[in-house]
Amino acid sequence: MLPVDLPGTVRDALLAPLVDHHCHGVRRDDLNRARFELLISEGGNPAPPGTTHFDTPFGAAVRRWCAPLLGLEPHAPPAVYLTRRAELGAGEVNRRLLTGAGVVAFLVDATPDETGDLDVLSAAEMGRHGGAAADEIVRIEHIERDVAETAELTADYLDTLEEELTARAARAVGLKTVIGSLSGLDVDPVPPATGAVIAAANRRLADPKGPLTDPVLLQHLLWSAVEVARERGLPVQFHSGFGGSLEPHRTDPVRLSAFVRALQPAGVPVILLHCYPFHRQAAYLAGVFPHVYVDVGLALPHTAAASARVMDELLELAPYHKQLFSSGCRGVAESGYLGALYFRRALGAALGARLGAGEWSAADAARIAHMIGSGNARRVYRL
Amino acid sequence: MLPVDLPGTVRDALLAPLVDHHCHGVRRDDLNRARFELLISEGGNPAPPGTTHFDTPFGAAVRRWCAPLLGLEPHAPPAVYLTRRAELGAGEVNRRLLTGAGVVAFLVDATPDETGDLDVLSAAEMGRHGGAAADEIVRIEHIERDVAETAELTADYLDTLEEELTARAARAVGLKTVIGSLSGLDVDPVPPATGAVIAAANRRLADPKGPLTDPVLLQHLLWSAVEVARERGLPVQFHSGFGGSLEPHRTDPVRLSAFVRALQPAGVPVILLHCYPFHRQAAYLAGVFPHVYVDVGLALPHTAAASARVMDELLELAPYHKQLFSSGCRGVAESGYLGALYFRRALGAALGARLGAGEWSAADAARIAHMIGSGNARRVYRL
Amino acid sequence: MLPVDLPGTVRDALLAPLVDHHCHGVRRDDLNRARFELLISEGGNPAPPGTTHFDTPFGAAVRRWCAPLLGLEPHAPPAVYLTRRAELGAGEVNRRLLTGAGVVAFLVDATPDETGDLDVLSAAEMGRHGGAAADEIVRIEHIERDVAETAELTADYLDTLEEELTARAARAVGLKTVIGSLSGLDVDPVPPATGAVIAAANRRLADPKGPLTDPVLLQHLLWSAVEVARERGLPVQFHSGFGGSLEPHRTDPVRLSAFVRALQPAGVPVILLHCYPFHRQAAYLAGVFPHVYVDVGLALPHTAAASARVMDELLELAPYHKQLFSSGCRGVAESGYLGALYFRRALGAALGARLGAGEWSAADAARIAHMIGSGNARRVYRL
Repeated sequence: MLPVDLPGTVRDALLAPLVDHHCHGVRRDDLNRARFELLISEGGNPAPPGTTHFDTPFGAAVRRWCAPLLGLEPHAPPAVYLTRRAELGAGEVNRRLLTGAGVVAFLVDATPDETGDLDVLSAAEMGRHGGAAADEIVRIEHIERDVAETAELTADYLDTLEEELTARAARAVGLKTVIGSLSGLDVDPVPPATGAVIAAANRRLADPKGPLTDPVLLQHLLWSAVEVARERGLPVQFHSGFGGSLEPHRTDPVRLSAFVRALQPAGVPVILLHCYPFHRQAAYLAGVFPHVYVDVGLALPHTAAASARVMDELLELAPYHKQLFSSGCRGVAESGYLGALYFRRALGAALGARLGAGEWSAADAARIAHMIGSGNARRVYRL
Repeated sequence: MLPVDLPGTVRDALLAPLVDHHCHGVRRDDLNRARFELLISEGGNPAPPGTTHFDTPFGAAVRRWCAPLLGLEPHAPPAVYLTRRAELGAGEVNRRLLTGAGVVAFLVDATPDETGDLDVLSAAEMGRHGGAAADEIVRIEHIERDVAETAELTADYLDTLEEELTARAARAVGLKTVIGSLSGLDVDPVPPATGAVIAAANRRLADPKGPLTDPVLLQHLLWSAVEVARERGLPVQFHSGFGGSLEPHRTDPVRLSAFVRALQPAGVPVILLHCYPFHRQAAYLAGVFPHVYVDVGLALPHTAAASARVMDELLELAPYHKQLFSSGCRGVAESGYLGALYFRRALGAALGARLGAGEWSAADAARIAHMIGSGNARRVYRL
Repeated sequence: MLPVDLPGTVRDALLAPLVDHHCHGVRRDDLNRARFELLISEGGNPAPPGTTHFDTPFGAAVRRWCAPLLGLEPHAPPAVYLTRRAELGAGEVNRRLLTGAGVVAFLVDATPDETGDLDVLSAAEMGRHGGAAADEIVRIEHIERDVAETAELTADYLDTLEEELTARAARAVGLKTVIGSLSGLDVDPVPPATGAVIAAANRRLADPKGPLTDPVLLQHLLWSAVEVARERGLPVQFHSGFGGSLEPHRTDPVRLSAFVRALQPAGVPVILLHCYPFHRQAAYLAGVFPHVYVDVGLALPHTAAASARVMDELLELAPYHKQLFSSGCRGVAESGYLGALYFRRALGAALGARLGAGEWSAADAARIAHMIGSGNARRVYRL
């Protein structure tokens, strides 16, 4: 699985169990081809007539790397792969792939997806299928959705929001926000004024089932979450870079700079997820701010055969004690397996290049592989 | 010409004739050194005293790769190259280089350049010189210029614009806009209001020979073109990324996201040209929207010896059924030849790396080379 | 030190003395670990508990490449390195590292840093320690600070500013601005109006010791500097890209496009410093504007083992007569040594790749190495 000739200690460090600090539950049901293709594409649209989402880096990687775990030859055709997947059944496939990822702990954002499609594994089930521990990450916009749907008065809404944030945080190892996809990462460095929050809450309760896109309310929610995180010593994950956004350029993590600076005294860890193609920007923030952490998450399985360069670009500037591993696993267990596989291959290639050029010692390479693969996550999430 | 050891089927696929889906007519006249240097530089300015535009990636590539087609040694000095070019004459040089590109069809934006310099080959002549078929791409801002110069009344102007778009589209295989260079790619997801269009048209007719930079009129023109494209099943090309822009950061194709989303129901193919250095952003759009296509066009001949990484970055995320080849050929036939050469070398390096790492099968590599080199263009342009 | 097999003439060109056209004076005093760690990090913050700034690309490079100059084995542990550094004393360490850089001339921004920490080598001392010539670069915001602190009336302030710019420029080989970090590189293409300048100057004199962030005053200062530069034939350096900025996305050099265009008739050379991660954008500007020059400065020592790709990305588009070398040396002499070392390694890797692929001749490679390493700087700074 590792692409290059590496010293034994470095190989061992790369193959050691990982902490996957950001993933979602995968589908528990058997999937037909149309459904599977939708789940391996970021866009949520079928491929145009005459084409297939298997003709993507992710699709080619499924055929190359997941097929053998299902007992097939590498590069199995899509139809063969999906037939075999159905034969084995989703449960067995999920077990093989999640176990194959070599993960010791999954930190799971168990938010049901926006389509109301609830048929995904819970955090605990992800752990059982993958032979690993599992903890929960709470997505704050999900809490808000629950509260908005039940609250009747503005004061109730705002009070319940605080209570729910506190209650849900008590059972979680971290909080997560997708504010970047909803209103952009240009978060103000001061909380919104009370009057503006009340006005926004009133508007919200007039349409409690719609998507939350009001920047005032989103920022109020975030500042409330930061306060809870500070009290409980939890990190806050920020979805950044591509994925799910209507305006992808607003998810560049440097836009979060002023907010991050404002958070520095409180010391709440800020974890930038995915970041691609703005991962160099994220690495810079991780270098200058002591409380900022970074990964390239779902960019690894989605850039697949080209992921070594993406990882290497993150390594250009990011301190080694600030990088984490996540697969961004979502929808199908293939993403969790490929995330771990390409993480190990990409980091292995990066370490191999540095060892080959005489830039690092083998001892440092092994130590850093361990930090990025699990040590940093254990520290920041207090696992 | 291909840089690495590749299986025969993959070599054959790479060397197969290409569809160059975006190029311009090249100069038909003999060029002195000053003129040639201007044409190989993006900026349109002479090199500073004591320097030469041959000391660029493009210039070095001309000496390395075009010199042998003119019967010279590789790395011929600039003066030797230009003397030989003059000896052979522009017609012979154009024939050698355009034929050498190995293109089966040129899709030509035959708009005369802004300096009124009309001495370039027509689409049909490009085909004859290159031993290929040729079709026309209509640049919509060129149509507007013609209409503005002749219309006297606002109503005539607007009506004639629609008529000319329809008439010119009838003879073309695609439309093209350079709105990104003129007012940026932040196109509104709804057409401008009629009143605003009429007011803008009035202003336009007061200065019909000036450059068109009014965002309202440019967006009206674009929406009109989209309607024509929808009726006729034509794709619309968007110049994006570097090249010709006063504000290069406004040509990032992600800025087009809202507009692209608005176009999705109509199904009009959106083709993002060039894109560099925002090609990762373009690849993302091609991945999430079923109607978006992408190339790195003139970035290939201009990044030359470094073009393999540019191509490989596009391949990080773009679906293989969404990538196209274009040379962005303009001014001199060298750009058409080098575009095709570096496309093949860069794609060959990318395929070779994936085959070497065991990521792809040779059959898939050959199939994908064929799709990107010509198959996708045949499908989207209905050639 | 050079990573690949290169022809002798190319090796010689790479190992020839460099002009380091942008550096700062380094600390003259002995540094304890806490102080040293602060100086090797861009952020100015200690590493989080349990971590160290040695676990960064820069830190690893210090252990690998600087340790041998201090008589230690490569990869010496941080504590061993710092103990040895203290044994030798700062003077000896500075001499070894600055001499080891192989620089023939330092162009030094000798501005004391904002913390009032004045204990750094002067330009002349940098030269003496490094066995090189030394010249001064004047940072215009530093002049303004001096003037603001002494002026009492607005008219005095504005007049003195002009006089000081002229007087200080008379002793310098170039001017430098950090406007990008202070108010962004979106500089207007016309000077601010006199009334606005006077109003801004009045505000400034009410708080003359605060940081200067008023865009009107910063732009007035810059336009005044440009006028002085034009009269004296001096270039103006622009700090761009990461480093010291509150809003890093505002330091993208393409934002300077309109201003650069406005400066073109005056012919004042514009030198874009650092640029990372916007160096492709900077390379484009250097390609289209005859008066724009570019380097990747402190990105080289800070991306360290990954710097070859950064350099190679600059080489994608930048004309070879427009690229310069700088180390961005600051704080510790290690940065000056590593800047020169990684410049040579990265450029060597780029040349080696082009020679290996048959893209360039050895004669061209040697010539271009010389241009980028010193020839271009001699020309533009008239050394």
